Amino acid sequence: MTLIDGKAVANAIKEEIAQEVADIVARGGKRPHLAAILVGHDGGSETYVKNKVLACEQCGFTSTLIRFEDDVTEEELLSQVEKLNNDDDVDGFIVQLPLPRHISEQKVIEAIDYKKDVDGFHPINVGRMSIGLPCYISATPNGILQLLKYYNIETSGKKCVVLGRSNIVGKPMAQLMMQKRYPGDSTVTVCHSHTPNIKEECLQADIIIAALGQPGFVTADMVKPGAVIIDVGTTRVPDSTRKSGFRLSGDVDFENVAEKCSYISPVPGGVGPMTICSLMKNTLSAGKKEFYK
Amino acid sequence: MTLIDGKAVANAIKEEIAQEVADIVARGGKRPHLAAILVGHDGGSETYVKNKVLACEQCGFTSTLIRFEDDVTEEELLSQVEKLNNDDDVDGFIVQLPLPRHISEQKVIEAIDYKKDVDGFHPINVGRMSIGLPCYISATPNGILQLLKYYNIETSGKKCVVLGRSNIVGKPMAQLMMQKRYPGDSTVTVCHSHTPNIKEECLQADIIIAALGQPGFVTADMVKPGAVIIDVGTTRVPDSTRKSGFRLSGDVDFENVAEKCSYISPVPGGVGPMTICSLMKNTLSAGKKEFYK
Repeated sequence: MTLIDGKAVANAIKEEIAQEVADIVARGGKRPHLAAILVGHDGGSETYVKNKVLACEQCGFTSTLIRFEDDVTEEELLSQVEKLNNDDDVDGFIVQLPLPRHISEQKVIEAIDYKKDVDGFHPINVGRMSIGLPCYISATPNGILQLLKYYNIETSGKKCVVLGRSNIVGKPMAQLMMQKRYPGDSTVTVCHSHTPNIKEECLQADIIIAALGQPGFVTADMVKPGAVIIDVGTTRVPDSTRKSGFRLSGDVDFENVAEKCSYISPVPGGVGPMTICSLMKNTLSAGKKEFYK
Repeated sequence: MTLIDGKAVANAIKEEIAQEVADIVARGGKRPHLAAILVGHDGGSETYVKNKVLACEQCGFTSTLIRFEDDVTEEELLSQVEKLNNDDDVDGFIVQLPLPRHISEQKVIEAIDYKKDVDGFHPINVGRMSIGLPCYISATPNGILQLLKYYNIETSGKKCVVLGRSNIVGKPMAQLMMQKRYPGDSTVTVCHSHTPNIKEECLQADIIIAALGQPGFVTADMVKPGAVIIDVGTTRVPDSTRKSGFRLSGDVDFENVAEKCSYISPVPGGVGPMTICSLMKNTLSAGKKEFYK
């Protein structure tokens, strides 16, 4: 069994990005610039955004953090989005989710210029991904593709079972794994809350991508020997032995599944670190105007 | 076994549309207006466009047909698209595909205002469909949803195998069948040219949607007794006994499969007639500004 080391892969990719940025700047080019809008003081969001700013430093990007209090109006937020759309120095930007209830997340997402939508949540990027056109692919699915690539995991003709049909992971993952390319060309099955026989579906899988948010859902009796297991679950489980009061739990019963499979991504340290790394890759693409002029 | 009669369903839906249009007009509202751009004289395209104009008449829509010769430049075509985008009387329009080789279909599709994109091919509509937001769903997948609805075919928790991963049928069909709603909530598997065991996959299916374009591909030994069979194949097979010199062949070995299944859509007369009917439904939605203001 090979442990998929997301932290190591993420670091290697960030180093590659930093090298490329150094080359661009040395040639007199512009340093890529990522901006982030953070509303309120949600603990998770604060951490994510802090890590994004740190990753920008590692990659040699310029980064800007714009903060609003919880009581910001939708109008004010949309006007800030518009400013960033029109700011020629900003190559890409994100609005950290979730937003307070009085603001429509979908409206904000659709207000972002798709050419700067490095989170890949704008319907144009979602649609282009589905069609197979160049675009920003959202962070988690893109991170998983990078992991499969890095470990040279065969996907063509393999049976890939995706657990979960969220807009952020399950659906894009399914679409990516069925594209005509590598990683891709898999026979993809998507299981969800209405699937009566998830165990039988999983037992057929060469690759399982678990994104249900149900700690320990995938047990050893659901896994074919030699399968590849990608665990996207990151549920906070109360844990009084930790300073934070919780630990992150994946969707996979790691201890028992690890013995049966060929590759497995742990939680934490698997898909998680790749997420921010994907955002950095998208920001580099934005800086280079790789997908859109 | 129940034969899915696409012609009858399409006629019933077109009658409903005509009734609604009559009501709108009686209340002083605007008659929906569909425009179509046809380039060249391809036999298939001529037939489709002629049928679309006829369907508009049945539904009480205004229709406009704009013709160009094969040697139209991309620029001229894009400028016509722009005119229709800005024509307040036109609620929706389509550019009949395929286009001559010197014109980028993708560029033309993306030039269409997504609010008037009743073919549902613009990335914004593709993306919104995937996310589960209101939008124009392209004609063939939407037609299949209408058939499932009309015959009250249960889809929740059912295993749906989609054969083919085209942007026009396979991919959107898979996305629609996994959405949280009816028709939908199915466990969806997408098979394609790289799938090594299509027969085994099909044998597990409660619903097979065949869109490979391979005449007679789905044989009786691939079908579970009682399955629902939707045949999207429409391959022209040479047939000297026909005046046209060809007949349409589906992806399913109809004669033998029909005996085993619970529902089956024939070719012709199944999904085909629903396609134009879906376009009419989208045009009515455009006229009512149902999805976009």
